[in-house]
Amino acid sequence: MPLFDKPLSELRDYRPERDEQPDFDEFWSRTLAEAAQFPLDPEFTPYDAALRLVDVHDVRFTGWGGHRIAGWLITPAGASEPLPTVVHYIGYGGGRGFPHDWLTSAVAGFATFVMDTRGQGSNGTPGDTPDPAGGQNAQTPGFMTRGVLDPDDYYYRRVFTDAVRAVDAALRHPLVDGSRLVIAGGSQGGGIATAVAGLRTGLAGALIDVPFLTGYRRATEIVETLPYYEIARYLSIHRDHEEQVFRTLSYFDGMNFAARATAPALYSVALMDTTCPPSTVFASYNHYAGPKDIKVWPYNKHEGGQTFQTREQLRWLRDIAKAG
Amino acid sequence: MPLFDKPLSELRDYRPERDEQPDFDEFWSRTLAEAAQFPLDPEFTPYDAALRLVDVHDVRFTGWGGHRIAGWLITPAGASEPLPTVVHYIGYGGGRGFPHDWLTSAVAGFATFVMDTRGQGSNGTPGDTPDPAGGQNAQTPGFMTRGVLDPDDYYYRRVFTDAVRAVDAALRHPLVDGSRLVIAGGSQGGGIATAVAGLRTGLAGALIDVPFLTGYRRATEIVETLPYYEIARYLSIHRDHEEQVFRTLSYFDGMNFAARATAPALYSVALMDTTCPPSTVFASYNHYAGPKDIKVWPYNKHEGGQTFQTREQLRWLRDIAKAG
Amino acid sequence: MPLFDKPLSELRDYRPERDEQPDFDEFWSRTLAEAAQFPLDPEFTPYDAALRLVDVHDVRFTGWGGHRIAGWLITPAGASEPLPTVVHYIGYGGGRGFPHDWLTSAVAGFATFVMDTRGQGSNGTPGDTPDPAGGQNAQTPGFMTRGVLDPDDYYYRRVFTDAVRAVDAALRHPLVDGSRLVIAGGSQGGGIATAVAGLRTGLAGALIDVPFLTGYRRATEIVETLPYYEIARYLSIHRDHEEQVFRTLSYFDGMNFAARATAPALYSVALMDTTCPPSTVFASYNHYAGPKDIKVWPYNKHEGGQTFQTREQLRWLRDIAKAG
Amino acid sequence: MPLFDKPLSELRDYRPERDEQPDFDEFWSRTLAEAAQFPLDPEFTPYDAALRLVDVHDVRFTGWGGHRIAGWLITPAGASEPLPTVVHYIGYGGGRGFPHDWLTSAVAGFATFVMDTRGQGSNGTPGDTPDPAGGQNAQTPGFMTRGVLDPDDYYYRRVFTDAVRAVDAALRHPLVDGSRLVIAGGSQGGGIATAVAGLRTGLAGALIDVPFLTGYRRATEIVETLPYYEIARYLSIHRDHEEQVFRTLSYFDGMNFAARATAPALYSVALMDTTCPPSTVFASYNHYAGPKDIKVWPYNKHEGGQTFQTREQLRWLRDIAKAG
Amino acid sequence: MPLFDKPLSELRDYRPERDEQPDFDEFWSRTLAEAAQFPLDPEFTPYDAALRLVDVHDVRFTGWGGHRIAGWLITPAGASEPLPTVVHYIGYGGGRGFPHDWLTSAVAGFATFVMDTRGQGSNGTPGDTPDPAGGQNAQTPGFMTRGVLDPDDYYYRRVFTDAVRAVDAALRHPLVDGSRLVIAGGSQGGGIATAVAGLRTGLAGALIDVPFLTGYRRATEIVETLPYYEIARYLSIHRDHEEQVFRTLSYFDGMNFAARATAPALYSVALMDTTCPPSTVFASYNHYAGPKDIKVWPYNKHEGGQTFQTREQLRWLRDIAKAG
Amino acid sequence: MPLFDKPLSELRDYRPERDEQPDFDEFWSRTLAEAAQFPLDPEFTPYDAALRLVDVHDVRFTGWGGHRIAGWLITPAGASEPLPTVVHYIGYGGGRGFPHDWLTSAVAGFATFVMDTRGQGSNGTPGDTPDPAGGQNAQTPGFMTRGVLDPDDYYYRRVFTDAVRAVDAALRHPLVDGSRLVIAGGSQGGGIATAVAGLRTGLAGALIDVPFLTGYRRATEIVETLPYYEIARYLSIHRDHEEQVFRTLSYFDGMNFAARATAPALYSVALMDTTCPPSTVFASYNHYAGPKDIKVWPYNKHEGGQTFQTREQLRWLRDIAKAG
Repeated sequence: MPLFDKPLSELRDYRPERDEQPDFDEFWSRTLAEAAQFPLDPEFTPYDAALRLVDVHDVRFTGWGGHRIAGWLITPAGASEPLPTVVHYIGYGGGRGFPHDWLTSAVAGFATFVMDTRGQGSNGTPGDTPDPAGGQNAQTPGFMTRGVLDPDDYYYRRVFTDAVRAVDAALRHPLVDGSRLVIAGGSQGGGIATAVAGLRTGLAGALIDVPFLTGYRRATEIVETLPYYEIARYLSIHRDHEEQVFRTLSYFDGMNFAARATAPALYSVALMDTTCPPSTVFASYNHYAGPKDIKVWPYNKHEGGQTFQTREQLRWLRDIAKAG
Repeated sequence: MPLFDKPLSELRDYRPERDEQPDFDEFWSRTLAEAAQFPLDPEFTPYDAALRLVDVHDVRFTGWGGHRIAGWLITPAGASEPLPTVVHYIGYGGGRGFPHDWLTSAVAGFATFVMDTRGQGSNGTPGDTPDPAGGQNAQTPGFMTRGVLDPDDYYYRRVFTDAVRAVDAALRHPLVDGSRLVIAGGSQGGGIATAVAGLRTGLAGALIDVPFLTGYRRATEIVETLPYYEIARYLSIHRDHEEQVFRTLSYFDGMNFAARATAPALYSVALMDTTCPPSTVFASYNHYAGPKDIKVWPYNKHEGGQTFQTREQLRWLRDIAKAG
Repeated sequence: MPLFDKPLSELRDYRPERDEQPDFDEFWSRTLAEAAQFPLDPEFTPYDAALRLVDVHDVRFTGWGGHRIAGWLITPAGASEPLPTVVHYIGYGGGRGFPHDWLTSAVAGFATFVMDTRGQGSNGTPGDTPDPAGGQNAQTPGFMTRGVLDPDDYYYRRVFTDAVRAVDAALRHPLVDGSRLVIAGGSQGGGIATAVAGLRTGLAGALIDVPFLTGYRRATEIVETLPYYEIARYLSIHRDHEEQVFRTLSYFDGMNFAARATAPALYSVALMDTTCPPSTVFASYNHYAGPKDIKVWPYNKHEGGQTFQTREQLRWLRDIAKAG
Repeated sequence: MPLFDKPLSELRDYRPERDEQPDFDEFWSRTLAEAAQFPLDPEFTPYDAALRLVDVHDVRFTGWGGHRIAGWLITPAGASEPLPTVVHYIGYGGGRGFPHDWLTSAVAGFATFVMDTRGQGSNGTPGDTPDPAGGQNAQTPGFMTRGVLDPDDYYYRRVFTDAVRAVDAALRHPLVDGSRLVIAGGSQGGGIATAVAGLRTGLAGALIDVPFLTGYRRATEIVETLPYYEIARYLSIHRDHEEQVFRTLSYFDGMNFAARATAPALYSVALMDTTCPPSTVFASYNHYAGPKDIKVWPYNKHEGGQTFQTREQLRWLRDIAKAG
Repeated sequence: MPLFDKPLSELRDYRPERDEQPDFDEFWSRTLAEAAQFPLDPEFTPYDAALRLVDVHDVRFTGWGGHRIAGWLITPAGASEPLPTVVHYIGYGGGRGFPHDWLTSAVAGFATFVMDTRGQGSNGTPGDTPDPAGGQNAQTPGFMTRGVLDPDDYYYRRVFTDAVRAVDAALRHPLVDGSRLVIAGGSQGGGIATAVAGLRTGLAGALIDVPFLTGYRRATEIVETLPYYEIARYLSIHRDHEEQVFRTLSYFDGMNFAARATAPALYSVALMDTTCPPSTVFASYNHYAGPKDIKVWPYNKHEGGQTFQTREQLRWLRDIAKAG
Repeated sequence: MPLFDKPLSELRDYRPERDEQPDFDEFWSRTLAEAAQFPLDPEFTPYDAALRLVDVHDVRFTGWGGHRIAGWLITPAGASEPLPTVVHYIGYGGGRGFPHDWLTSAVAGFATFVMDTRGQGSNGTPGDTPDPAGGQNAQTPGFMTRGVLDPDDYYYRRVFTDAVRAVDAALRHPLVDGSRLVIAGGSQGGGIATAVAGLRTGLAGALIDVPFLTGYRRATEIVETLPYYEIARYLSIHRDHEEQVFRTLSYFDGMNFAARATAPALYSVALMDTTCPPSTVFASYNHYAGPKDIKVWPYNKHEGGQTFQTREQLRWLRDIAKAG
């Protein structure tokens, strides 16, 4: 049944109870504090991308654990004044690719900062950033269960920390206008953006498309698609770890970050999305504490609004840029 | 077996005999002459794409049979001098989408002209151009067998004519530098580009990726994937039309166009491509009569080189632009 | 879940509100009037089918837009008196094939008239009738979205008109007894028969098996199978046309025709039918305004009752023939 | 690769060595002699099929082991003179269904005799004949390995015996003209027909479409489709029985029957047939010792020529009928 | 939806009405009495399994209809005192394989008796026991519909009778302690164990994992997986036999046996089991009349608890052994 | 085509040239020397497995990089003299599970040592050993490309080192007879065993079933199945790393280890194995430098001989045990 989740009328009001440990905030402030002991040390190296309308820099900065994270910074050719900026996070499996993969927001006039996702980047577009930490448990292929038995060891602890620091790294560049910095991402990128929106203040906006990494338990019960299925597959073998796994995941659930967010957000959701089911997206959206809007795509799966959503975002970004 | 076609060492020399009717050239000169009776009448309407680094025009021009064909023209913002230009043809099923779908060559500094494929555009990116002719035979769903019993009635007679005229339409715009006009496309777009390269002189170059529409008979015998499979499916029902179908297709076979081409070409091929098998691509490449080079991607299917191929093309285009 | 739709107890009473535009009747009377401007001009050409118990004629008549439609007329060998008659419409994709594909009702003693479906006939059995109109919009492969943005341009406007006129063509043959003419079809053929039952009076009966072309919106929400899925696929790309598409389809919804029908009908439905979901079949049946009966096949998918349903129909037809 | 088997040019001459035990003929004469100890006892019971152009009888006769086998006899209504006759054998899984499933040859003027396949008839059309013998070995689901460790116990020993006796049963009916009796079948039915052609003299012809049950070893090595795959699946578990299994099957290999046949035969083969690979069909055809012809369908799978092949057969049968 | 059946909270109380014919007990006492007319005649032949810690015997005994059934008896090497014992029944398709396939309970110190399932054993592990009875109806490939039109002729009448007699055969061996005999099985083996638990007294326990053969009608309505699907497939063809089929199956429904059981049972169930849906397992469990416990595996399909369940069973068996 | 690889007659002689870097031996002696700097520190902790015929110890020892590796040691209950021993390596994805998963060789009288594979153990049977090193490159999900750009960083450098040290750890236990120690494994386990056979002397034998990890390039060209496909998938994205990837893999190719082995080996191969294609297995076998034999399973895929191969191995092990 393509419309497999709750009907839209129910989704609009679907606001499930959040599973949140008492030390959630303490966990994250400790995590970011630990990371802050490593200097950010952003590098911006000019890169010849054979493109005439933009300038490109290959970026490196220090993320979690002192590990260097790769990225791109793309700016309108010859820009000299601080620009409105978009920091992009990437969907599951993808990597930063090449600068010509990230032109849309740059052509819209935004400084465009792209953060590689550690360990990923062997699907769709290549990545250049390893995750040197293998985790302290046997794991299902992929990244969802790497370190999943301990919040301190969990893969996304490192990724979300990288993502917060990516904003810091962007702000170090003189062409980035910190008062007009927007974060953006779809799927995993949307999940990361939600986390950053909950962990960091001062953002001008968040573009969150068909976000992943939220409502883990429900997701494993209503869909059997990767990447959520990595968790179910792990639990189908490690039958004695169910409680611990969901406890760990509660520190990384989009709902808990959404409830702490303040920046204006533009979400999107697809009603036939079997990868990131609409009820998990609305769970995040309905808990989102900042100003917000959501674009609903009724006949789409995880591809969501695609180029139509980009059109929406370009208009929304233009307003942000003007407002700055 | 992923490496299902001939080994690369054989492909390098694979130059099958061409199946060409004696009136091939006459057919096409007659076709283009008929089309020329309709005035081209190109319209360039400014379009607000919420993009700052480029100017965008919604394009319409008259293709085959007097039918209006949609497109985009994207140019660096504020450009005033004639520019090197790329005319893009689209892969099977796709449509012109939105301007933000076509930024790469524009950011590289090229006037970028995109031609909608009539009837298509309900897969991936939306199209805006109908094919008002339904064809004079019962057909398999799709476009491959629309009118396939008669070369005059065949779908790609209309499309290839549109494509030749798209170059003419582009040349009508003052920002297009006719001496530096390159055609480009992947898959069906590559097949169309091959046809244009064979039918039209004066081109500065052709970017032909994993081209479709070549070596029809062999394709139907070694792969069972859409869209070539539309032909096999048709023949599996219309068992008495095999000879006529392949006779019609011979007027639209990339090999026959390649043998007439003169512009420098950069091809690409993927050795595990089960959609456009490498032997059909090399059949086109090895017959190509202009200066040429080919990039071989050994571990790819029909996606080919993707962003890596774009990197190759940007460098190749930069040389073209300089040469102009 | 094989029993994926509503339970039978609910289906028996399922009578959803119909989506009907105020000008529905006007639309169809105008459509048929326009078609009537073309003379029907039926031709019946003797055909050697190597069959001894029947006489066969190759049929042509003028359908919508002046287009010639192919068919067969099969009658008991040497018949000289007007006969009870069945007019057959064909399932999606199929064509009229050969006379030996249509022997059942002929052997039951009925004049058997088969109408080709324009454009179709490249699946299962070959067809001989093109649809020369390609439609005024980019379309998904297949026929469901050809012209779907405008009721006047929609593919089934032409097909349903052909179907009404097929009855007229049959009546022109001296062996056809107009007082005992039954229409029949399964799947798309059942959808066409429903339309004819709603558009034409004077029919002696209608055999409607697992009908397609009814309850479009619900169908796209509960199944993801072709051909209904062509609509969903179209909407997944043309995200801005949802309203217009369903408005167009409302002029072609079996429920609206069923509500106008008067002839006795024998329906069939299969409870595990994922192609034409049982709730859409019951939506048509429960709105059917004539005398009616329905045969329920609990363990079948879209194949329905097959040879068992044929047995039911032969008995039902025998009663019709006697009643005549 | 759709054209997965040998090329047609090689197939035309493909005549592999036959694997035949020295007692092949003795085995079969003993088998038929044992069966002959049970009286044939054919019963022809009038059956109301609601069909006017034909008369129908429900048939029972004694096959192998004294078991009663069901069938149909369908004759032109009111016929009184002996008729040319077709005895039909059925494809794997199917059953005799209802009389209206077997009208083609009857409408062509032939007495039409249909033999149920014991145990089968739970796929497509229902059967009414059990196989009371379960076999003396553990078996793979299906019929291919029932009794496969011993030629005397093998399932097809019973079926082929039934099939020879079906001809005898048909001959007992006064409307059957023994000098014009043709056997016919597709797939399994073609394999059975080949066996009967090799075991019985006096036949006027054999229609053998895409025959199954020939070239077992090669079939299990080049395709992985049911029903040949039942054998491979058996051997994948019963790894110690390979020699015995193929020894048993050699008594039932179409090649060995073909080499003994004398009646004129019309074969068909499909070059993309992954169920009954073309090389196995040609192996049978090229060994066939009677007058013969073969119709080659290049773009078809196991469906073969379908309605086109029926057209060929109707013409061929008309010649047979005239010749009688 | 992976959690496709009722939620666990409902399953805990799910106790559907049983479909039981009035002569259920009479049927089974008559069946077992008939079987008892054949002497059991157990044979235990020493077998060299190349294993040092256990002694192995190849077992044969007389099951239903005088047919000989194969098995294994595995005992700790050199044991001389009666031992606690496990009688194993096998999952659908599997056979007794080799002794080294059955070491777990033997290493736990139990005499281990394995019963082959007649006719099966051509999937996973090979079997050595034919089912000489082919049944009195056309059947779907597999065993579920062999003889399904008549309880007396049904396949599982023979299997369940074999299974009761397997316990008798085990008891004939001097190393088997009849006061500590446990039956065990998963899937089909669990269904057989349930039947034996309902048909035979004096058992010390029953290990019933993800049992098959219970709640047939619901199973065919909510899953479409083999082997339950064999029944649905049969009914999809033999449309006129629905009532008779479910009447026959009612004599073989696990619920009816569970309601008669008295031995302590350890069940397991997997909440995502699409082969033996959890509601059918709980239907059996909740009707089970003896002392009972159930282990629930929330993230598993039909594999259930696998090695974790074995761990549970080893502990449970240790308690049984001690209690003896 | 099930027999998709070379025919058996060619496989028997297939001995492809090995791709071996000049410093292969130096690489491995350096690797093992580095590992040796960490004390082995084996721990054997008694474990209650609820099994009476065997004693069980939970094992930990130090593998590569000082990481602790888990395992089991299972010995006949109460054994006091040194025993012939089997060290087991595990197939891809699996973990050590529970002791009752490893009873076969123990019941054959062998001390049975099982080594967990670091990071794995979330498929089939659970593992308890993490791989704390995540690798220095973006990777495809799974383990095949973790660290694949550098032999020093590659995942299997750590695993093969663990495996050599597992033998050392086993030898530390007083019940292990070092003169009769056999290594064993199937698939990945067979690949690891091949590596150990090439890296370590003094082994009494090697059981190598359907080995993985050999002939990487050919494997990626003729099959598209996991886990070899992880490599092809990586190269399909990281198109610029082909040379480096295959250079790294050459240090881990079973052929290169086989050519250095001296212990007697019993291989197995399955001719329809699409996971570890038979040509790659024979490439290893034909290069194997010690005494050797191979069991060929003609109708099997990657499951190979399963319980039949175990039977072969038990006999082979009995000879080894006697020989000791």
